[in-house]
Amino acid sequence: MPIKKKKKNIVVLGGGTGTYTVLTGLKEYADDGISLSAIVSMADSGGSTGRLRDEFGYLPVGDVRMALAALAEGENGDNLLRELFLYRFDKGTGLKGHNVGNLLLVALTDILGSETKAIQFAGEVLRIRGKVIPVTTRNVTLSAKYADGSIVKGETNIDEPPRIHDGTQRIRRLWLDPEAPATPEALSAIRAADMVVLGPGDLYTSILPNVIAGGVAKALSKAHAKLVLIVNLMSKYGQTHGFNASDFITETAKYIGRAPDVILLNNKPLPPSIIKKYRTEQEFPIVDDLPPSAGMRVIRRDFLRPDEVKKASGDVRKISLVRHDPKKLARALLSL
Amino acid sequence: MPIKKKKKNIVVLGGGTGTYTVLTGLKEYADDGISLSAIVSMADSGGSTGRLRDEFGYLPVGDVRMALAALAEGENGDNLLRELFLYRFDKGTGLKGHNVGNLLLVALTDILGSETKAIQFAGEVLRIRGKVIPVTTRNVTLSAKYADGSIVKGETNIDEPPRIHDGTQRIRRLWLDPEAPATPEALSAIRAADMVVLGPGDLYTSILPNVIAGGVAKALSKAHAKLVLIVNLMSKYGQTHGFNASDFITETAKYIGRAPDVILLNNKPLPPSIIKKYRTEQEFPIVDDLPPSAGMRVIRRDFLRPDEVKKASGDVRKISLVRHDPKKLARALLSL
Repeated sequence: MPIKKKKKNIVVLGGGTGTYTVLTGLKEYADDGISLSAIVSMADSGGSTGRLRDEFGYLPVGDVRMALAALAEGENGDNLLRELFLYRFDKGTGLKGHNVGNLLLVALTDILGSETKAIQFAGEVLRIRGKVIPVTTRNVTLSAKYADGSIVKGETNIDEPPRIHDGTQRIRRLWLDPEAPATPEALSAIRAADMVVLGPGDLYTSILPNVIAGGVAKALSKAHAKLVLIVNLMSKYGQTHGFNASDFITETAKYIGRAPDVILLNNKPLPPSIIKKYRTEQEFPIVDDLPPSAGMRVIRRDFLRPDEVKKASGDVRKISLVRHDPKKLARALLSL
Repeated sequence: MPIKKKKKNIVVLGGGTGTYTVLTGLKEYADDGISLSAIVSMADSGGSTGRLRDEFGYLPVGDVRMALAALAEGENGDNLLRELFLYRFDKGTGLKGHNVGNLLLVALTDILGSETKAIQFAGEVLRIRGKVIPVTTRNVTLSAKYADGSIVKGETNIDEPPRIHDGTQRIRRLWLDPEAPATPEALSAIRAADMVVLGPGDLYTSILPNVIAGGVAKALSKAHAKLVLIVNLMSKYGQTHGFNASDFITETAKYIGRAPDVILLNNKPLPPSIIKKYRTEQEFPIVDDLPPSAGMRVIRRDFLRPDEVKKASGDVRKISLVRHDPKKLARALLSL
């Protein structure tokens, strides 16, 4: 009788395209020894998600949609159902800007009377290879206090300097209003995890909104899981302006109450032409300022996606030119 | 070796809730000796369908949606995917009134570049038991000339007396503008049919818009198929005002160029309370005025749905209180 190897539980914490990238890479191993869960942020308040949230009063669906699409079976381009799920209407009064996946999740929530059931059913239809778990089922407003004392409420407002706030100011405190407990599913996934992956992605609007849900930081700091932080490629004006690699570690540790065990850091230089384009948005490559012995394992490697990045359907960033490579990240994570 | 019985090809011609009823009933036999095709009208110009048609320029999706939902596997209530497909948003700026199925068909048409492929894929996802065939793939405007000489253009306008036209006037001529050929799939389905079912449903806005697509009348008149007409339960103000059963036969024969072979006619009296409600809308039970020997087979039977009819999602009629029973219709059709 063959010995059945215990599956490795991997939890990815986040939302948005960074988490999409990590999930896409790890998904390929989902039948092959790993059990994958995505815990996603419920802070999104912009775009299609924000409109639906305002008009229907349900939880935000954008990050759920991205995680479901990432975990849907098949490679990019060979799964029409995923393409449909990510499809964004580019015309139609009132339709323009809405993603099909968002609309489906809202309709399912209304039919089934529960966001959790809606996610479950959408996952079945998309035949996802893993689980998607909302970090909380409370309707919350992400709130941030900056170094200059100003307070901004709402994920999309935090995401939008300099219209709303001074993008050079650091965020000193991040919280959910009202305070909201994490779902039991999220907490037990963390407790059972062998590895928890944070990032890449917008630190204060995609990654940390999960950590600040009630119980998550404590579960993470007590977890037996290896904590892996994937450091972003570029700084983001209004969130991580002026950040070096060490700032990502410090900030993450501050909210979790424990430093990451492993750091994944791209060391392949970005093309100067791309750096130039980002500079127009006040965004810069993250500098590796980690001391030789940082007290944690640092994996420096080429994690860049080699091909030019097309804007994904549903991606509203003005520029999106460099990305991590899903396969390179997955290989590094699974070698740990 | 068991002898494989040749499947009976049944084609249902129409659109809307009448066709939905017939398809729902026949679908249950789809694995059991019958092969089912729904040829659906491309004339719809109202509501969600009309808005999408105007804004995206694709073919109308409403009747396709209904036929796909009818043929989706499983009984009503046990298929969440169908419920989702028929779901209608009742709030949301610009979303209100749209059906999820309509939005999915539009998104799929954009992704795949073809309405036919979109219908095909939606059918696969819904695992439909049969085929849904658009009667034409040309963008057409349904047009009607009335006894008083007036002309009305657009399906939804024809459907809306007395705001647009005098509802007591009979329609003398019905045509598509511009003239449009039927799809080869529709014509070959009719040619291969053992039975073609017309009705119940709005005669001039759901049933006959199929017959007047180029080539359909000729194919029907030459077809070896048994032609079955299911007579409506109630007259409809603005379309079939003052009609008796014989008028349905005469009008259908006029557009096809051949009289139906079999007539299905409900003979169970409607409850007086319901008749009273319809009367407020100038709508009356269809009277059986057929002579004893009408030169065709007339099946008079109780075809009424016994339970109270809830308004279906996607049904915009003010009143919808009596309906044919899908099972009773299917049994009668299969006994022919």
